[in-house]
Amino acid sequence: MNLKDKIAEYPNFPKKGILFRDFSPILKDPSALSEIADEFSKYFHTKDIDVFAGIESRGFILACILAARYKKGMMMIRKAGKLPGKTVKLSYTIEYGKDTIEIQKDSIEKGQKVLICDDLLATGGTAKAAAKLIEKVGGKITGFAFIIELTDLNGIKGISNYNCKSLVKY
Amino acid sequence: MNLKDKIAEYPNFPKKGILFRDFSPILKDPSALSEIADEFSKYFHTKDIDVFAGIESRGFILACILAARYKKGMMMIRKAGKLPGKTVKLSYTIEYGKDTIEIQKDSIEKGQKVLICDDLLATGGTAKAAAKLIEKVGGKITGFAFIIELTDLNGIKGISNYNCKSLVKY
Repeated sequence: MNLKDKIAEYPNFPKKGILFRDFSPILKDPSALSEIADEFSKYFHTKDIDVFAGIESRGFILACILAARYKKGMMMIRKAGKLPGKTVKLSYTIEYGKDTIEIQKDSIEKGQKVLICDDLLATGGTAKAAAKLIEKVGGKITGFAFIIELTDLNGIKGISNYNCKSLVKY
Repeated sequence: MNLKDKIAEYPNFPKKGILFRDFSPILKDPSALSEIADEFSKYFHTKDIDVFAGIESRGFILACILAARYKKGMMMIRKAGKLPGKTVKLSYTIEYGKDTIEIQKDSIEKGQKVLICDDLLATGGTAKAAAKLIEKVGGKITGFAFIIELTDLNGIKGISNYNCKSLVKY
């Protein structure tokens, strides 16, 4: 299966000038969903992963598909203010202003190996912040899994010291 | 395993007077995650489900865990404004004001059987709206799957005509 055929394109969404790449057609196709798990299993080994971390909210999807396949745990990397208990936060710069992400302090045991998952790698700001945050609580980053990578935006640059794998590149 | 032991409680989150029930400890425990899938498989049969619909954003997690287990597709029920293409929306009343959820028109083929998933059933407003929205695009509701149900809020009342299953009740 060519996964690229299962990614829909919507010009000018969410705003003018943006071409939105939508992975919804993959989600509704059980064989495409299964292929995603197969593909990543070629690049990341079970022994190198304890937890799949999903970046809110579409990243939860990839993290859970992989957690179910590898029989591992998952954790949420959320926008600030949504997680209870003791948390750590990190702010990072975006196009106009800043964003903040947050995780629970006890979401990872010290030394656990974490694969960070998101549907799409664009500028990489969130991905880089996610890695810092997980390292801050003692996690070790095994790498990053993305379904889509927008290579023009060169987000890979900020996380090039990690093992990164994207299934579909534009 | 008693799943209730894996649900953390945080008083006064996200605001004073609210006791937040957090399923994060389930997520990070692979055997608890797997038990969730096992439990629902006692109540819903493979032949009665084509698509697992997850309600943004923690509902995505349950929908994906089940989609991976049952080898079916999944779809997103999102807050308004986040999905590209042709969509349908529905607004419903919440405590102070209203909320709107949205799905893509082509997320379901006519007649497909849908199990709606969320982490928690509270007042049931979102759940009821989700069912209406899926029926509007031609889907058939097989039922609802929740990890947690807050029985005091009686959210089950609004969706009692469907087959509903919650794993942990308070």
